[in-house]
Amino acid sequence: MTRDSTTIAPLSARSSAHSSAHGSAHLSALYTALRGRDFPPATRAAAKSAILDGVGCILAGVPTGTAGIVRATLAEFGGRPQASILGTRERASIAGAAMANGVAGHVIDYDDTNASMIGHPSTVLAPVILALGEAGGRTGDDVVRAYIVGFEIETRLGRWMNPGHYGAGWHATSSLGIFGAAAAACHLLDLDAGQFAHAVGIAASASSGLRRNFGSMTKSFHAGHAAERGIWAAVLAGKGFTASPDPFSGDEGFLAMYRASTSGPAAPEAVDTVNGKAARGEAAQEATSGEAAALDADGPLELDTVGIGVKPYPCCGAGLTVIDAMLDLCASHRLAASQVVRIDCAVSAFARRIMPFDGADDELQAKYCLPYCLAVALLDGRAGLRQFDAPRVREGDVQRMMERVRLAFSDTLATGNGRFGVDLRVSLSDGRVLRQEVETPRGHPARPLSAEELARKFIECAETVLDTTAARQALARLQTLDDLPNLSPLLETLRPAD
Amino acid sequence: MTRDSTTIAPLSARSSAHSSAHGSAHLSALYTALRGRDFPPATRAAAKSAILDGVGCILAGVPTGTAGIVRATLAEFGGRPQASILGTRERASIAGAAMANGVAGHVIDYDDTNASMIGHPSTVLAPVILALGEAGGRTGDDVVRAYIVGFEIETRLGRWMNPGHYGAGWHATSSLGIFGAAAAACHLLDLDAGQFAHAVGIAASASSGLRRNFGSMTKSFHAGHAAERGIWAAVLAGKGFTASPDPFSGDEGFLAMYRASTSGPAAPEAVDTVNGKAARGEAAQEATSGEAAALDADGPLELDTVGIGVKPYPCCGAGLTVIDAMLDLCASHRLAASQVVRIDCAVSAFARRIMPFDGADDELQAKYCLPYCLAVALLDGRAGLRQFDAPRVREGDVQRMMERVRLAFSDTLATGNGRFGVDLRVSLSDGRVLRQEVETPRGHPARPLSAEELARKFIECAETVLDTTAARQALARLQTLDDLPNLSPLLETLRPAD
Repeated sequence: MTRDSTTIAPLSARSSAHSSAHGSAHLSALYTALRGRDFPPATRAAAKSAILDGVGCILAGVPTGTAGIVRATLAEFGGRPQASILGTRERASIAGAAMANGVAGHVIDYDDTNASMIGHPSTVLAPVILALGEAGGRTGDDVVRAYIVGFEIETRLGRWMNPGHYGAGWHATSSLGIFGAAAAACHLLDLDAGQFAHAVGIAASASSGLRRNFGSMTKSFHAGHAAERGIWAAVLAGKGFTASPDPFSGDEGFLAMYRASTSGPAAPEAVDTVNGKAARGEAAQEATSGEAAALDADGPLELDTVGIGVKPYPCCGAGLTVIDAMLDLCASHRLAASQVVRIDCAVSAFARRIMPFDGADDELQAKYCLPYCLAVALLDGRAGLRQFDAPRVREGDVQRMMERVRLAFSDTLATGNGRFGVDLRVSLSDGRVLRQEVETPRGHPARPLSAEELARKFIECAETVLDTTAARQALARLQTLDDLPNLSPLLETLRPAD
Repeated sequence: MTRDSTTIAPLSARSSAHSSAHGSAHLSALYTALRGRDFPPATRAAAKSAILDGVGCILAGVPTGTAGIVRATLAEFGGRPQASILGTRERASIAGAAMANGVAGHVIDYDDTNASMIGHPSTVLAPVILALGEAGGRTGDDVVRAYIVGFEIETRLGRWMNPGHYGAGWHATSSLGIFGAAAAACHLLDLDAGQFAHAVGIAASASSGLRRNFGSMTKSFHAGHAAERGIWAAVLAGKGFTASPDPFSGDEGFLAMYRASTSGPAAPEAVDTVNGKAARGEAAQEATSGEAAALDADGPLELDTVGIGVKPYPCCGAGLTVIDAMLDLCASHRLAASQVVRIDCAVSAFARRIMPFDGADDELQAKYCLPYCLAVALLDGRAGLRQFDAPRVREGDVQRMMERVRLAFSDTLATGNGRFGVDLRVSLSDGRVLRQEVETPRGHPARPLSAEELARKFIECAETVLDTTAARQALARLQTLDDLPNLSPLLETLRPAD
């Protein structure tokens, strides 16, 4: 074909049908590099810890109505019993198990976070590696490696696209997590870089998840959807299914549609700028410099540099420092709820945007309700699973205490990168005003939980469905996951007795 | 809780956690109205014709590699044999059958279109109503009604959100089709308006599909994905799964994220403004006037006013008038390919944007390649399934003829609303230049195919997998679909002999 040079000019960039291959090409190179890399012991230990915490959260989610509805739907549709639905004696197809475990892992909102992704890395990855690892008879070492591959892909994409992506309304856990799920699945299916590129293109066309569904069951559906569709993308690509070689760049590419930030190279510290204004910036059509930095195949691992935040409380990440501050006051002043006449709490506008509920009618809203977090922490002196369970939310004392809370919003409080500045003042009936400021929550990579705290959290979660012996066995097998010749010994302990 | 009035102002719109209920509330009212409405015979006939054409396209897609990979993946994951994979003797779960039939129905790109949706209504709806209709033992009348309910929901959303939505890069067949799929499924599951609203919220969080994947297998995956996830949304909602009551409005709502047009009330004629510039307009945060007009529960049916375009050729909709023009010249001048030295074809910039390929290596690219459409129509004097099949695409004569094509782009040619203006000039070796202009393709609602042409197209499609007798029986049963007490007699004819 010959082009008419007088008229084609405005379209030349598209005339070869996506001839450039930004994004996808970088991702494929990164995938290949990760597959060939020998990960040091500290990196592997971090991945193992994340899988441990992720499995704990899945077990804690099993008894919820949300997870039950998803299991009932899967049972209605049926499937080959290829992989375990954790914390139950049920099995499902690889895709179905990933869906069920993804939803269960996220519904309690106790699962881990990554600041570059502005999302939850493990609730999507753990279901993928366990389902494919079980069905494929893979070793514990294989699944730990697959976790790292998936983690790097989804968090590097976060570095590239955030804060604009999250700020536009996307639940990055799902919309970026699907790429991590696809990458981990491609790794366990031994797909090459070319097949991986097609899987990425398929995943781009199934990427979704609205933050507006926070506070409803659909929030955790996002995690199951991303895990399941990531597996679909990899399985299809493995069978020769094709996608565009470059779904990312251009006016109508994934980056522009899903609103990448224009803030240039998204180095980890750049995420510190996340706030109402920056996060609502205009879409970038390309982000070449950020792309090179974020997707650099030879660069340091995100798992080593930015790391993972482990939640000490089962609520929205923006609520963690609020609870920390209140528990600190309780501990240092032996505070009794009856002394408290008023609670003034200042948070960032960003924290408020992702925790929009003033009141809480159920446990899902409670996780996104700052006044509830303050009230229950004060009343119970703790904030574990029981504090965010449905019956507790509806009790009179906590509902009444919420009325004493006044929220304020400050642009000067630190926010982003897993930090959420809080300035808490508690007024007592004797006239005293106690004050506590917190910026970095417990469990943040800069303030990690101890191994014992991690283990205690796992046991708390596991005991919602397992007896104590099984919970402790499961803990031990997860702590030595990379020594297992296959996943059967682990999965056996995660299956409750009849 | 008491708010601090000095600081809360900027956040007040969100302080009640999505208290407004635009979009969802309108959609639910529309759903209720449609369920209660008695559709006149002409409307029902239009729906029946659309289902007929949709089933034909599914059958034609069955032998493709694309559909085969999806069936192989479904077989690997398994499922209860609840519903038929058309054109095969295989069965799958309701969700799986919808996925398989959705992909098969779209891969040939022969399936129908709607100008408000800027998408393909039936490739997502037909799989949903057939799978749920079969599994639920519903009547032919039930599924025709469900089609209309789903069609109105997805096309009204199109009126509301386009041209900005499609223009931003979304494949509306999937990203809006998922809402039609959910609505049709909700209807067949007898869900109430409240449950429907939750299904809409779930669907919003699974809405996806990049036009950048046009020309690859992933384009038809979009249709299967939307059909399957629409069913998931309805089934989950029917079991009590919850979503946000208002996923649509606000800075971070579906409308802004998926870029609604700012062009105000999206009356059907407004879609005529679709072109490169208008379609890339800024996102609207609310579209209240357009919302009221487009989602009006008492308004005329989209099926009656805008209607459905039926494709006479299995290629991108923007290629139809190009082929019409060439076939018109062939017919009126008894044109022989050997006479042609040069083909000059002017189309709109919008047509070019959605058909970006200059060359075609395979049948999927050929459908998005204007030079291929021109060349094959000239050489073969027709443009049926065989002209867009893999072997034909690679033949030397058509590849050589493509080199004689020169494309030009004009902003003055009509575009949008299913029309794609073409100005074709064919230069002959004897010095003559033949000219043909076309604006409205054959099969457009303003220029409909005859009943006989529709039937002939169905038989052409059906005979790719059925023998002639079965194809004719299937045609007869689809023509009287609303008389069937259940779908079994129809599905039996759609199953090839062993």
